[in-house]
Amino acid sequence: MKNFSKRIITMGASPIRKLTPYAEEAKSNGKKIYHLNIGQPDIVTPEGFMKAIKNFDEKILAYSYSEGMPTLIAAMIDYYEKYNLFFEKDEILITNGGSEALSFALQAVADPLDEVIVPEPFYSNYAGFSTIAGIKTIPLVTKAEDGFHIPPKENIEKLITSRTKAILLSNPGNPTGVVYTKEEVRLLADVAKEHGLFIISDEVYREFVYDDLEFTSFCDMKDICEQVILVDSVSKRFSACGARIGAILSKNKALIAQILKLCQGRLCCPTLEQIGATELYHVETDYFEKVLCEYQKRRNAVYEGLIKIPGVFCQKPKGAFYVIAKLPVQDAEEFVIWLLKDFDLNNETVMFAPGQGFYTTKGMGKDEVRIAHILKEEDLKRAMEILKIALEKYPNKK
Amino acid sequence: MKNFSKRIITMGASPIRKLTPYAEEAKSNGKKIYHLNIGQPDIVTPEGFMKAIKNFDEKILAYSYSEGMPTLIAAMIDYYEKYNLFFEKDEILITNGGSEALSFALQAVADPLDEVIVPEPFYSNYAGFSTIAGIKTIPLVTKAEDGFHIPPKENIEKLITSRTKAILLSNPGNPTGVVYTKEEVRLLADVAKEHGLFIISDEVYREFVYDDLEFTSFCDMKDICEQVILVDSVSKRFSACGARIGAILSKNKALIAQILKLCQGRLCCPTLEQIGATELYHVETDYFEKVLCEYQKRRNAVYEGLIKIPGVFCQKPKGAFYVIAKLPVQDAEEFVIWLLKDFDLNNETVMFAPGQGFYTTKGMGKDEVRIAHILKEEDLKRAMEILKIALEKYPNKK
Repeated sequence: MKNFSKRIITMGASPIRKLTPYAEEAKSNGKKIYHLNIGQPDIVTPEGFMKAIKNFDEKILAYSYSEGMPTLIAAMIDYYEKYNLFFEKDEILITNGGSEALSFALQAVADPLDEVIVPEPFYSNYAGFSTIAGIKTIPLVTKAEDGFHIPPKENIEKLITSRTKAILLSNPGNPTGVVYTKEEVRLLADVAKEHGLFIISDEVYREFVYDDLEFTSFCDMKDICEQVILVDSVSKRFSACGARIGAILSKNKALIAQILKLCQGRLCCPTLEQIGATELYHVETDYFEKVLCEYQKRRNAVYEGLIKIPGVFCQKPKGAFYVIAKLPVQDAEEFVIWLLKDFDLNNETVMFAPGQGFYTTKGMGKDEVRIAHILKEEDLKRAMEILKIALEKYPNKK
Repeated sequence: MKNFSKRIITMGASPIRKLTPYAEEAKSNGKKIYHLNIGQPDIVTPEGFMKAIKNFDEKILAYSYSEGMPTLIAAMIDYYEKYNLFFEKDEILITNGGSEALSFALQAVADPLDEVIVPEPFYSNYAGFSTIAGIKTIPLVTKAEDGFHIPPKENIEKLITSRTKAILLSNPGNPTGVVYTKEEVRLLADVAKEHGLFIISDEVYREFVYDDLEFTSFCDMKDICEQVILVDSVSKRFSACGARIGAILSKNKALIAQILKLCQGRLCCPTLEQIGATELYHVETDYFEKVLCEYQKRRNAVYEGLIKIPGVFCQKPKGAFYVIAKLPVQDAEEFVIWLLKDFDLNNETVMFAPGQGFYTTKGMGKDEVRIAHILKEEDLKRAMEILKIALEKYPNKK
């Protein structure tokens, strides 16, 4: 029998999901797990979502439009207008989550063996989607001690080759919690401009920016707007991860017209979920404020818990709902498995995503974990206590 | 600015959907269109689907399992057992429609520049998915006058090179309506066995086989079961196209484990749609019989209408709900556009999918259309009348 494809063999398992079997095992033994490994918030999904779906009364669940339902696209246009970003309906495509938006954006700008520069550490599926598409991710090293901010221009430019097609990044950052300053966004825009690169900007966490910092979208850089591909999703913004509704937005209409062919290939996104998602964009205006306030409390709870633990290093994250923490362990993945298999505190334990999966540079992230601050404040405080005691008891410390 | 990728430029627009703007224009002028261009049936979706979704009362719409919901997988296992096909839960992955199942299957067995043999004419998105994945589709010519049956073994074997990884086909056939005999399935299985190829078998129309013909699944070929990747979907079977729920099934557990990485990359399929789809598999047992009977009447209506039209050639299709018809026109795409723009019969017209999009061999299908018999019998009869009169009036006949 022929071999499986090289690309699928090469693709790594999700660092966020691959330890799930250990978690299932622990749970079946009655252990309670604080799941800080995955960005699944416990914030209630706005009621409008299910209400709209429950009102659906067509007798046939028919295909939707390949480009997405006009009502949903209109609702997105309204949302962005509040931020002075103006899109027209032929500049938006609805996708199966931000995931499909990312895959489509990559496939649209890069061919096999082409290169995409990605600030590292990065959302692990960026590597996965690239590997499957035959595209090389070229890591741009950013450091915990710099708060994962963008290094000087020459560091970026020395990575550019004739095969470089795009810069791919998330802002606010997953897994780092970094929020790029206006100057950084401008710097990257300048690089894109000078070298003709696309910027694939994953801004799914744009509502989650703490400490009253200003958020700058790459779409604010009007001089390169045709080079910017925005990736969006309702998953985190509206705590509707299971809806799998995302979007690609770009002022480059010709590019959108090309990506529409990909949308036509998979026919359409689910009809009901689009009906529900449309209502998400009609939430009352104070919704984002309330949610932001809640997440900021949570960020604080995790950060303050972490800095009290001897040997742990982290910077205070400014956005999204993740923090990268360096732990005083030899191998963070082994530690996470140990937390699930061999440790409990009154029958409770905690789960993180091992850091290595967010790097492609060999050896990086081995003593790091990504912690998602997506549970209630008291749960997060408890989880940090559990981590503290677990680290005291863990045998394979650094 | 850098060019868009070669793969996206090369990808063709969907022949099924690309003429939609003409249809929208016609409708906005008040014209009624019989849509026989797309496999969107008018059969009512089983009520259980919406009932189950309306009963959903979780406060948070959370991520589902990457591999799919256990209840849905269990329901699929039960479904296949009725056909003596036995799958275990780690042999099934739920996907975003049959579309994603096809993409994943191709990506899992073939790398860029690898080849996949596809009986032609074929579902146009096979070419699209392959192009995007960098895979070459090698057409295996099948002919209308042979009822689109598989040619002799040597015709297949002469297409095999060191880069051939799989045979990809739909059975029952879209767009041909062919149902491969047990001998043909065995022949293809033998080729796969002797050359170590995978068979990606798209059997989404397996319930739609007419004239009491027997259906043979590639999964019935036990000796090559590890080489078979089954692609499935609820879209047509349960008239739930908008649900976007499909599946990959294979007895090759190692392959399923590899494809699970792709599933983890896009996180999960929509939660609600999986809950609904589970109920689809619990429909009363006579559901398929009733639907089959209805589609057989429709097939007859279209076939009998077509053979009465001078200059039209088609074979009686045996399965799925499509027929390829040769029309006495120079260019079928131009004819379809003319039907939408310039023709009406009492303000009604009809829409088909131009045949060329189902071929990669140059020049093939130019005078053909794919007709989907997915409307009520009386509508189909009316549509065939409209076609007859349209052909009488059409200026650019052969």
